[in-house]
Amino acid sequence: MTASISFSATTGGAGAGTDGRSVGVVVPRSAHFDAPLPLQCGRSLPSYDIAYETYGTLNADRSNAVLICHALNASHHVAGVYADQPDNVGWWDNMVGPGKPLDTDRFFVVGVNNLGSCFGSTGPASTNPATGKPWGADFPLVTVEDWVDAQARLADRLGIESWAAVMGGSLGGMQALAWALRYPARTAHALVIAAAPNLSAENIAFNEVARQAIMGDPDFHAGDYYAAHTVPRTGLTLARMVGHITYLSDEQMEAKFGRQLREGLKFSFAPEFQIESYLRYQGEKFAEYYDANTYLRITKALDYFDPALATGGDLPAALAPITADCLVVSFTTDWRFPPSRSREIVGALVRDRHDVSYAEIDAPHGHDAFLLESPQYLAVVRAYFERIARSRKLPAHPQPGSTPMPAEPVARADHATIARWISPGARVLDLGCGDGKLLAHLAQTRAVTGYGLEIGDAGVLHSLEAGINVIQRDLDEGLAGFDDGAFDCVILSQTLQAMRNIEQVVAEMLRVGREAVVSFPNFGHWSHRWQILRGRMPVSDALPYQWFDTPNIHLCTVADFDAFLAARGYRVIERVVLRDGAPVHLAPNLVGEQALYRFCR
Amino acid sequence: MTASISFSATTGGAGAGTDGRSVGVVVPRSAHFDAPLPLQCGRSLPSYDIAYETYGTLNADRSNAVLICHALNASHHVAGVYADQPDNVGWWDNMVGPGKPLDTDRFFVVGVNNLGSCFGSTGPASTNPATGKPWGADFPLVTVEDWVDAQARLADRLGIESWAAVMGGSLGGMQALAWALRYPARTAHALVIAAAPNLSAENIAFNEVARQAIMGDPDFHAGDYYAAHTVPRTGLTLARMVGHITYLSDEQMEAKFGRQLREGLKFSFAPEFQIESYLRYQGEKFAEYYDANTYLRITKALDYFDPALATGGDLPAALAPITADCLVVSFTTDWRFPPSRSREIVGALVRDRHDVSYAEIDAPHGHDAFLLESPQYLAVVRAYFERIARSRKLPAHPQPGSTPMPAEPVARADHATIARWISPGARVLDLGCGDGKLLAHLAQTRAVTGYGLEIGDAGVLHSLEAGINVIQRDLDEGLAGFDDGAFDCVILSQTLQAMRNIEQVVAEMLRVGREAVVSFPNFGHWSHRWQILRGRMPVSDALPYQWFDTPNIHLCTVADFDAFLAARGYRVIERVVLRDGAPVHLAPNLVGEQALYRFCR
Repeated sequence: MTASISFSATTGGAGAGTDGRSVGVVVPRSAHFDAPLPLQCGRSLPSYDIAYETYGTLNADRSNAVLICHALNASHHVAGVYADQPDNVGWWDNMVGPGKPLDTDRFFVVGVNNLGSCFGSTGPASTNPATGKPWGADFPLVTVEDWVDAQARLADRLGIESWAAVMGGSLGGMQALAWALRYPARTAHALVIAAAPNLSAENIAFNEVARQAIMGDPDFHAGDYYAAHTVPRTGLTLARMVGHITYLSDEQMEAKFGRQLREGLKFSFAPEFQIESYLRYQGEKFAEYYDANTYLRITKALDYFDPALATGGDLPAALAPITADCLVVSFTTDWRFPPSRSREIVGALVRDRHDVSYAEIDAPHGHDAFLLESPQYLAVVRAYFERIARSRKLPAHPQPGSTPMPAEPVARADHATIARWISPGARVLDLGCGDGKLLAHLAQTRAVTGYGLEIGDAGVLHSLEAGINVIQRDLDEGLAGFDDGAFDCVILSQTLQAMRNIEQVVAEMLRVGREAVVSFPNFGHWSHRWQILRGRMPVSDALPYQWFDTPNIHLCTVADFDAFLAARGYRVIERVVLRDGAPVHLAPNLVGEQALYRFCR
Repeated sequence: MTASISFSATTGGAGAGTDGRSVGVVVPRSAHFDAPLPLQCGRSLPSYDIAYETYGTLNADRSNAVLICHALNASHHVAGVYADQPDNVGWWDNMVGPGKPLDTDRFFVVGVNNLGSCFGSTGPASTNPATGKPWGADFPLVTVEDWVDAQARLADRLGIESWAAVMGGSLGGMQALAWALRYPARTAHALVIAAAPNLSAENIAFNEVARQAIMGDPDFHAGDYYAAHTVPRTGLTLARMVGHITYLSDEQMEAKFGRQLREGLKFSFAPEFQIESYLRYQGEKFAEYYDANTYLRITKALDYFDPALATGGDLPAALAPITADCLVVSFTTDWRFPPSRSREIVGALVRDRHDVSYAEIDAPHGHDAFLLESPQYLAVVRAYFERIARSRKLPAHPQPGSTPMPAEPVARADHATIARWISPGARVLDLGCGDGKLLAHLAQTRAVTGYGLEIGDAGVLHSLEAGINVIQRDLDEGLAGFDDGAFDCVILSQTLQAMRNIEQVVAEMLRVGREAVVSFPNFGHWSHRWQILRGRMPVSDALPYQWFDTPNIHLCTVADFDAFLAARGYRVIERVVLRDGAPVHLAPNLVGEQALYRFCR
């Protein structure tokens, strides 16, 4: 089955503009299973087929296999083209191929079509062996968990005991999460992209509108329209139209269509605005190749997905069984599964002390962004697969620029002081971790574990490359989501003075950590005093900015910080003031350039 | 016609929690018009009825009349109840009544039902005099402008030459804007609430889904279903469901419904989640009383509304004919007509130098917020009607606390200096205008015109009470939307040091203004130098905050600001440094507490 499909609402051809080549011509395959598959609904599927494709080569120790799970209406056709359909490009061809972020020169990639689909795996239009007729309305309501169980049997068939990674966007991301949960030992890494821990009320509401549109169509015949030789085309068109709106961002739709008219105002109900004819076209095209019963079931699978249902809404408890390292990615303009939903997943994984990194990609395309080009997005996935390759001990990458980074000596004196203060094996949270080098150094020299928080794109990418768990986040929003006492030490290195709310951040550091380490430039240094005495705001090596463009908005002296801690009853365990990288003991507030404090409640 | 309707998706009974009383029992009225009404589509309506209600008493000089325009599916029943329907409360009963924000003890309020509706005014279900049958599909596609023209004839009939105000939310706000445009001499004030200058592509897309749902229903019979004695109930239900989603905010829907189940998972397509049954119920209830042809036409009227179509997309040019003072209000969680759309209206009015104020209300209810309780919202509308009452010379309000504010003497020395620098009649922009007193003082003493920008709710409300044009806005977002050289003077009083991007704000001031006036606390004051010399960050009367909690994030000295201006080639016209409110000339950077600069390019 090789229907030409594209989940992407905004692009037809994928792959343009990316590094790397296409996997070229591919051949869809099918696996038949005779053993009944028990389903979440209590029924079981007596026998079934799973359609799939593979790209790249499984290595001898079977350690390089990656599973790609698809979203709502995509399929197993992830990359490449079919010999007889050169325009039918796989839906993630920009992501998967030789030299691409998921590099098929190193990894063996499996694309799989879900049960209940209409693209090759057994679904409502397939023949029910018990009746010899199409399943129709009687096809069970399959769930994300059912899909994952079926995929696990396919993995058995392919001889893959453990996936290097399971990866997916949207509903595919939910499957990656479900894999990590149901098969922890078989899921080394999970890439959960543009997903959510469950659907919101609004998400369910849109799905329900789509279902009502299909089921209210007189051609639906209660789901048994195959025999009637009809298709609920009107309903399916409507369902796709409403769904399609939610895949795009408001701003992208505005940029692409705005209020463009087709031929001026007609004062009729025929399509007048371009967006109307575009939506109708998309809906009608979809209704030509997609099966309504499949659509109904996939929206239900989305509605049902909710790992925390079993734990009374406690997502950290629900995700506790996970052992995979996780990468979570969201997109700023995605209003179907907005970043806040991805942050829930990240927060739960952090609570459980899992290895997780999180990137929030600034992209204009709405939910569809996970299928599209975005340099930061592709770079983040590439960096993460580089890490996966290292952890799976795959041969070093042949391409230039991707050699593993050498362990750098820590040149910065403040880093050395901080390293001395951290107990071996400690749990550390590094606020404003920048390129991740301090945390990587602490991991290497003190075997610490933990997370770096960083707001900048470049820092997040470099931190991923440095191999640390990095979470993209604005520190000025506080540390909500981190448990009391979750860390042995919370570090704020050279960032205090740029924070908007000093009191909150210091209080939060001592809430989530047993100890806090803070370093900052000393405003009390004699050169600063001298400049102010002369009537000007100071500029120095430690404070290289002008008063009007400085990011340092809350400067203080050593004496100020002493008083600040004392007033709050915080206990200074150690204080080091540095001049030219060496500790000073005489008149530190006058001659010290940098101050480092280790303190606790 | 007195059908029980409520536009509000989230509340049934309005009026709870507001000050004031209900107007009590009201009686709907109808006016018949025999003169044909020319329509925008080129056709005309031969004769028609307009349903309306009135509350309060028209005063002798007919200066206290306010017109309320309704949104999508509301009616002329704005306030009060019907004698035989004590539960049928008007849709804006919380806003309109004795002692309420729009006080019927002072104002004569008219609620009107639009042409094409199904609540009393002539519409598709009415009899076409030419055929003796219902208009059905042949009823013209009426527009916002057509409604306003019909309302103007009703005003003639009621003897109202000029409205003290025309007011509406959502589609009603568009009518208020259209009134100000088409009948400038008859519209003294316009209150444009939760509206937009036109629909976005996404708005049109949702409307098109709703229309396709209705028109695809086999019971629609191409719009002539009255004869067939059917109703396109399925389509209308769907249309309302999808519309309803867009009235609510995601967060409100989540708080109200979340993932609550009705009776556990059933693995069927019957409603399982509460949000599903709620939506179905809302849709089905709506389909019982609302006419599908009306719904189609109202969505089209929304799609068509676009004053800037005639000016090639130039909204300021389109709004130029307006002479009304305008109040524009938006709500933070409204994603149907988000604040950015209201800001477009405000920006265009500002470009045209119209009198306009703008409030952005922080409310969780989404688009529906314009119908609901929110203290700041109701206070803003109340303050604006107080201003309208003054400008229409209505008798002073009998209630305590609402006496007109006395002209306060300006106690602040910096204000007096600034007033001296402003030419009489100048156009002034006051950045961070606070309570509006400086601008009110300048208006009173120097007859200046212009706007105050203010981010805080309290400041916006006080500025409205002070009678100035205030626009709620974050200065750190720059001055986009203000034309080059639009003002004689741009003032930044005691706000510079709290700005994030000093260079940008100063450059923007000199872009939109011929001259700039800046005042700030002098960090060079000897007491600050002394404290720093002693190794501590300074605290003083002028800088009363601690280093860690100060909003003053970019402090500077007089010498610094001198150097800043000089480096950019800006010319200082005058500089005054104050100590104890009096100018100092000797060592101003050492003894001055406050610095005031008047400068230009």
